[in-house]
Amino acid sequence: MADESYAPTPSTTFNRYKERGSYDVETIHNIFNTTSVVHVSFLPSPDDPFPVILPMIGQIGTYPGDDTAEAACYLHGYVSSRIVKLSGSHDDPGFPVCVTATKVDGYKLALTPFHHSYNYRSALLQGHAALVTDPAEKTWALELITDSVVPGRWAHSRPPDKGELAATHVIKISIVAASAKDAASVPADERKDLRNEAVANAFWAGVVPVWECFGEPVPAPYNKVKVPDHVAEFVKNENANSEEYAVWAAGNVPVKKKREDE
Amino acid sequence: MADESYAPTPSTTFNRYKERGSYDVETIHNIFNTTSVVHVSFLPSPDDPFPVILPMIGQIGTYPGDDTAEAACYLHGYVSSRIVKLSGSHDDPGFPVCVTATKVDGYKLALTPFHHSYNYRSALLQGHAALVTDPAEKTWALELITDSVVPGRWAHSRPPDKGELAATHVIKISIVAASAKDAASVPADERKDLRNEAVANAFWAGVVPVWECFGEPVPAPYNKVKVPDHVAEFVKNENANSEEYAVWAAGNVPVKKKREDE
Repeated sequence: MADESYAPTPSTTFNRYKERGSYDVETIHNIFNTTSVVHVSFLPSPDDPFPVILPMIGQIGTYPGDDTAEAACYLHGYVSSRIVKLSGSHDDPGFPVCVTATKVDGYKLALTPFHHSYNYRSALLQGHAALVTDPAEKTWALELITDSVVPGRWAHSRPPDKGELAATHVIKISIVAASAKDAASVPADERKDLRNEAVANAFWAGVVPVWECFGEPVPAPYNKVKVPDHVAEFVKNENANSEEYAVWAAGNVPVKKKREDE
Repeated sequence: MADESYAPTPSTTFNRYKERGSYDVETIHNIFNTTSVVHVSFLPSPDDPFPVILPMIGQIGTYPGDDTAEAACYLHGYVSSRIVKLSGSHDDPGFPVCVTATKVDGYKLALTPFHHSYNYRSALLQGHAALVTDPAEKTWALELITDSVVPGRWAHSRPPDKGELAATHVIKISIVAASAKDAASVPADERKDLRNEAVANAFWAGVVPVWECFGEPVPAPYNKVKVPDHVAEFVKNENANSEEYAVWAAGNVPVKKKREDE
C-alpha cells in the first residue's frame, strides 16, 4: 500500500469524537496484531436476517512470496467451520466480513455515571474473505499466526506435516476499509460537579487500569522440558508492557485539541 | 423464561466440538455479565454488503418493573451513534443484531502448531434491537450497566439529572437465540508425538494462563477523596477470581466424554 492511511468509507466515517478516530495503517495493524482474539462478523445465509460473530485468532501481514501482495488479514481458528464453508463457496473476491480487535485499557470512574467510560483501543476492518489455497502462503500465514500468540513458537514446536497442513484452513481477508479509535486519559467531569463540594467531596473519581495479564506457565501433564526462554520472556515482557500502557493511559491528561465536530 | 435453555436455531447449532457448546441460560448470561466489553454486529444499510462490529458495554437482565418482561440484553456506549439511529428508525420488534462476549483464559501451547489453541469462554446472542423509551426502565438499565462495571458504583456517584438521562441512549435487545462455548483444559497432543523422543524431549507443552487484570486505582487530578472500599474490593476480588479460574483451567484434565459428533 503506497498510502499510509486507509481511505474513509461511509461505514468507517467517524460521526462522534472524531479526534479519537484514525485511518492510519500502522495504528490499525498494531491494534489487530497485539490483540489475542478478534471478532469476525458475517451473514451466514441470505435468508437469515441475523449476522453472527465468531471469536478467532487473526493477524495482518503482507505475504512476501508475491510482489503484488497487499497487507491482508489472516484468520485461523477451530470455531470457523461455517466461515470456512462460506469462504470455499464464494467466487472472487470472497464474501463480505467485518473484523474487530478491541483492548480495554481502563475503567474511567467519573463523579457521575453519565461521564463513566473506558480507556480502550479498537480497530475495525471490512473486506472479502476467501480460503488461502497456495500451500506456501498457507504455511507462511500459519507461522505468522502461531508466532503472534507467542513469538518464536513456530520454531520451538514440531513442524506441521502434510496431513496437518491439508486439514488446516486459513482465511485471507482482502481489506476494503479500516479504521481505529482509542481513548487514553483521565476521566472528564463537569465544572458544576467539580465546584459542588457535596459531589466532589463525596465521590471518588479516577481510573482503574486494565490489561490482559499472563500467569506462570503451567506445564502439560506429559511435558518433559523446563519452561523455555521464548515463553518465559513473552510472559515477562507482555505483562510489563501492558501494565505500563494501562497505567500511563490512566494518568494521561491530554492537551486539549479543538474537535472537528465542534 | 420458563425453560432454562435457549432453543437451538440453524445459526446457533454446533457443528464441531459439540461437547463444548451450551444453550444453558445461566452459563450464557454469566459470560455476558462478567465480560468488560461485548461486540455488537449489524448491517448498517441494506445497500452495504459489509456488517460492522462495535465494541459496547452490555448486560443481560430482566426488568423488574414489568411482570411480563423476559431477560434482555441492554447496551450502552458512546460509540453507538449509528446503532442508536438504526434503533430509533426501526419499527417493532427492532433491527437484527448479534452480540458476542469472549474471555480468553489461556494460551494452550502444544508440541505442534496444529494443536495450539486457547482456553476461552464465549457467548453469542441474536435478537432485535430497539431504544428503551420508558424512563423508569432506562434508569434501571443504566444502574444495571454502571454496577456491572464496578459493583456499587451507581450508589457511589452523583445521580444523573433529567438532562443527562434524556441525552443517554440505552438499547434493549430481545433475545431470539443464544449459545455459549468454552474450552478449559491442558493441551492435547497426539500419541505419536508423545512417544517420539525427538519431539517430546525437544519442545515445551503447557498453558500460559490469561486473565483481565486490574491495577492500582489512579485518582483523577481533581479527585478529593481516598479510594473507596467498593473500588478497592472490586480490584482485589476480580483479580483473585480471574487468576484462580485461568490457573485452574490451565491444569484441568477433563474426564473424557464421548463426543456426540463421533
